[in-house]
Amino acid sequence: MQPSQPITLEHVQLTNGFWQQRQDLNRRVSVPNVYQRFAESGRFEAFRFDWKPGMPNQPHIFWDSDAAKWIESASYLLQQQRDPALEAQVDELVDLIAAHQEPGGYFNIYFTVCQPDQRFQNRTEHELYDAGHLIEAAVAYARATGKEKFLGLMCRYADYIEEVFKTHHQTAFYTPGHEEIELALVKLWHYTGERRYLELSKWFVEERGRHPEEKTYDYANARYDQHHLPVREQTTAEGHAVRAMYLYTAMADLAGEYQDQSLLDACLRLFDNITQRRMYITGGIGSARQGEAFTLDYDLPNLTAYTESCAAIGLMLFSWRLLQLKPDRRFADAFERAMYNGFISGISLDGKAFFYENPLEIVPELRQRDASLKESRPLAATQRSELFSCSCCPPNITRILASLSSYLYTQSQDTLYIHQYMASQAQLTAGARLTVETDYPRGESISLRLQGWSGRRLALRIPGWCRHYELTQDGHKLPLQLENGYAVVLVEAEDCQLQLTLAQPVTFYAAQAAVRADAGKVAVVRGPVVYCAEAIDNGPDLWALTLDTTAASWLEPDALSGLDRIVLSGYRQQQGAAAGEEDLRDKQSEPLYLPQSDLNETPQTIRLIPYFAFANRGETEMAVWLRPHL
Amino acid sequence: MQPSQPITLEHVQLTNGFWQQRQDLNRRVSVPNVYQRFAESGRFEAFRFDWKPGMPNQPHIFWDSDAAKWIESASYLLQQQRDPALEAQVDELVDLIAAHQEPGGYFNIYFTVCQPDQRFQNRTEHELYDAGHLIEAAVAYARATGKEKFLGLMCRYADYIEEVFKTHHQTAFYTPGHEEIELALVKLWHYTGERRYLELSKWFVEERGRHPEEKTYDYANARYDQHHLPVREQTTAEGHAVRAMYLYTAMADLAGEYQDQSLLDACLRLFDNITQRRMYITGGIGSARQGEAFTLDYDLPNLTAYTESCAAIGLMLFSWRLLQLKPDRRFADAFERAMYNGFISGISLDGKAFFYENPLEIVPELRQRDASLKESRPLAATQRSELFSCSCCPPNITRILASLSSYLYTQSQDTLYIHQYMASQAQLTAGARLTVETDYPRGESISLRLQGWSGRRLALRIPGWCRHYELTQDGHKLPLQLENGYAVVLVEAEDCQLQLTLAQPVTFYAAQAAVRADAGKVAVVRGPVVYCAEAIDNGPDLWALTLDTTAASWLEPDALSGLDRIVLSGYRQQQGAAAGEEDLRDKQSEPLYLPQSDLNETPQTIRLIPYFAFANRGETEMAVWLRPHL
Repeated sequence: MQPSQPITLEHVQLTNGFWQQRQDLNRRVSVPNVYQRFAESGRFEAFRFDWKPGMPNQPHIFWDSDAAKWIESASYLLQQQRDPALEAQVDELVDLIAAHQEPGGYFNIYFTVCQPDQRFQNRTEHELYDAGHLIEAAVAYARATGKEKFLGLMCRYADYIEEVFKTHHQTAFYTPGHEEIELALVKLWHYTGERRYLELSKWFVEERGRHPEEKTYDYANARYDQHHLPVREQTTAEGHAVRAMYLYTAMADLAGEYQDQSLLDACLRLFDNITQRRMYITGGIGSARQGEAFTLDYDLPNLTAYTESCAAIGLMLFSWRLLQLKPDRRFADAFERAMYNGFISGISLDGKAFFYENPLEIVPELRQRDASLKESRPLAATQRSELFSCSCCPPNITRILASLSSYLYTQSQDTLYIHQYMASQAQLTAGARLTVETDYPRGESISLRLQGWSGRRLALRIPGWCRHYELTQDGHKLPLQLENGYAVVLVEAEDCQLQLTLAQPVTFYAAQAAVRADAGKVAVVRGPVVYCAEAIDNGPDLWALTLDTTAASWLEPDALSGLDRIVLSGYRQQQGAAAGEEDLRDKQSEPLYLPQSDLNETPQTIRLIPYFAFANRGETEMAVWLRPHL
Repeated sequence: MQPSQPITLEHVQLTNGFWQQRQDLNRRVSVPNVYQRFAESGRFEAFRFDWKPGMPNQPHIFWDSDAAKWIESASYLLQQQRDPALEAQVDELVDLIAAHQEPGGYFNIYFTVCQPDQRFQNRTEHELYDAGHLIEAAVAYARATGKEKFLGLMCRYADYIEEVFKTHHQTAFYTPGHEEIELALVKLWHYTGERRYLELSKWFVEERGRHPEEKTYDYANARYDQHHLPVREQTTAEGHAVRAMYLYTAMADLAGEYQDQSLLDACLRLFDNITQRRMYITGGIGSARQGEAFTLDYDLPNLTAYTESCAAIGLMLFSWRLLQLKPDRRFADAFERAMYNGFISGISLDGKAFFYENPLEIVPELRQRDASLKESRPLAATQRSELFSCSCCPPNITRILASLSSYLYTQSQDTLYIHQYMASQAQLTAGARLTVETDYPRGESISLRLQGWSGRRLALRIPGWCRHYELTQDGHKLPLQLENGYAVVLVEAEDCQLQLTLAQPVTFYAAQAAVRADAGKVAVVRGPVVYCAEAIDNGPDLWALTLDTTAASWLEPDALSGLDRIVLSGYRQQQGAAAGEEDLRDKQSEPLYLPQSDLNETPQTIRLIPYFAFANRGETEMAVWLRPHL
């Protein structure tokens, strides 16, 4: 391990560009809007603990976590810019938590108000998941505001959990059915310095897979929540993708904290399995709606891709932990792939509505295919919603957006690592300062100014997708050698100015031969951004289009996405009649199958938009993977 | 309408070739084997009406129909070749039917033995479907043997049905949830000349769609069993495909019997909708497992194709009825397409095992995709079985095979129509005689000898797939004009000998632009036979293969199918590493996505077998639609 430490949220500000605009929208629109939807649906009322049978809005088992992720989102906003009104909203909730937490430390709305006799009896019921998100929120709020009331409550809850799970084991199960508390306890240890919390995290992780008797849902087996094997023996990403990612994130945390090589090795095997076998080109993971789960190596159907927004976030969190243990661009590449595609696709461009799942193909009319049945089997969502009955994704997206600037840089004693390129300013140790100016990923050029870092090293990630790049200083090209995908330079000047260029030609990507769903198709990618076609731009039946991959393509500004459209030459197969006997030619008749030689096609200009911008102009067909022209 | 009359089973014998071999196997192996499986599973014991709760093998609601279709199969065998042992098996069942039929005429095992209080109370419970198959069997057995005992019993049952459904309407519903009795009653009218049976058939068909209150299964709506609209208003094939086909077949029967143009028009619209929008290239129909149903125009997924064997048979029956009303090759083309592909694929090459569904793609390992769930969602069967719990397909296939020679020829007063080409001898009216010698569809040449037909016309179907053909007499090419796809010649000689050649080049077919599942793919077809690739011949991941559609192909004898294999040049995409920075090259690492320009492929010879022969060498990947090389 060659660990490096993150430059944390309070030390980095985005200054403009793609992500700064999204952070601004997040602050102005998304976080308040999620608050409103949660308020309307009774999620905050529930903290009054006065729901009674027969009343509307019965608290749900994961409502605590919805509110917690909203508090965490608000905390990251507050950390960058104080806002008394927003703070008051959080404080009101904290007061309610204080008022209703049990003296022993237990806190859960549903299992106090609805089923008090079922506490910690059923591992699928999300109590520890709720606890984990409340702990994350409490830490974030303390960091942001210095107010530690919420944190104190959650320390008491964590103490209680330690007692009933680990010290005296009085609960009906050992490991939570939905992982989350493991990574939260590491955050609690980081903030409080109280090592018991780290030990408790380790205990939960180590117990996993050692209790084959532990039950999961009736329809699932032990793979579903990753308790099929002790974690060090797990080699493939299995089961519910979000649960898996939260577990692996904690495993990576613990590998670092304990310098535990065998745990790191397990993480690396799992990371490779995901990114080399089980990940969509968008960074989406979890290809099956049933179980919201990983399936098999190379099984990546596009139309029925589940690819939950929270799972893409989970991949970002896991990659980020690994990146801190070892600066290797594979981890930052995965982070960037998810961030620009399967993560940000989860929120509408107006900031109000969210996708739970992020399919790679949409054919709206296929929803009608079970025309003779009362209920159709769902394929995938085609439009975003402001609220879901299980509304985990919206506040997960807002919390990541609000804290995104904390995922850009790490530093070790002698090296500053730049993992992601965003226009930003960062305070480093001992007064050193980094300023990045760029309109990446729209532009290819990144200006870097590093002050007070002389005698130390700067490591610039050259993304895995980038084949042509150069780094110049004062107009002179620097010779570059990559270390694990990072161009490393020794900084000599006190005020060092560098210019990095990452060429981003429009590139046609193919999938490995083993991927059935993408065989014979290409995805159009520019830099880190995956593109897609929508019928609103290109007409229906997108599968009837073919791209001329040898012709020139060009870029067109796209007000919708804030990036560019890609315009390509292509063709459209025409519906048509077969050549044949004249007396059988019927103008109305189109044979369903006809000799390939009878096919007609007409030239068509094809316009692609960034994948993340799909489904922002009404319901329309969409496809990422398109056919190259023969 | 230009009706022509079938040359019926007793007048046509297959003499050799593809279908004669299958008929022989059917007589030797399949019919006895189905009998054994039915006997072992209690289907014949059930006719003793002595099942009691707690005993094994509780009779099922459609067991009557399973036995009936076996009797019908046996009858067609007996019609062509008497067999006392086989006849004794049938007679034993007929005696049991006679012993247990109620004095009033009612006969149904389940609703006598298991639920006698539920007779004709629930339209989904298959009583009239059972009755229809028993009637078909009784007519077939009477025709074959002259014994009319069974027929008499079934006339009494039909009389009872007329009384309780139509005359006094004492039943809980008007129309059966599974059509079948409608077409059976037409057969009963043909044999008995008793017009009431035709009128009853018409009554059932006319009532359909006029009782919106009639219920179907809880999961289905009125489209499921085609009672969503009066039959003349139906324009798209909807719902359960077998039910739909049996209804449409009866509609075509009635259109002819009543010279009912509006009913015929409805049939033609439905036929066009099926064959131009909703039929697989194999003649399989019904693309959804859920509901065993038609879905939407052009929605023809291959991996999850349901395409029940009985539905392909239904398409043959429907097409055959239309062909009798109007000699138009569209109908004979559809019949032939289903017969050589989606029908005969339903039985194994050893004659013992059957497919209920006939998918166009098999990927065995995808059965494991729900690895984290207790139960996987089924995709499609990958291997044939000798018996199913709902075992409608096996005896349906055996009855069609045993009677196949009755679907070749029709004649009107002045014209003999040859619809299908099989080596055969046929007795025509007034001592005229037809002899066909050919090894079609392996060979392209068909010798025809027509004796005693001078002064009348001969109409030879030129299949829609055939672009080059010629007809010669004494080595001289005859000038041909097609009438609705039939080459018509005036026969002058008393002993007329003709030679027809139908060129059958290997042809790459494409689907219309609207068919999403087949976009960018081709199916290899020779004459009427659709081909497929199996992994056992070509290695796994068939989607990684591409065909060189411009290179020569050749034929290789195939002992397995009795036809030829097609051998093609092609390529296989190699799994491989992306070109990139040397320091990042890891021999174990295969990036999941890589620039299209990095793809490697190696030449590979590709061997295809007839589609109907798939899954006869163990479980292996299969695909009909393959990718052409770029």
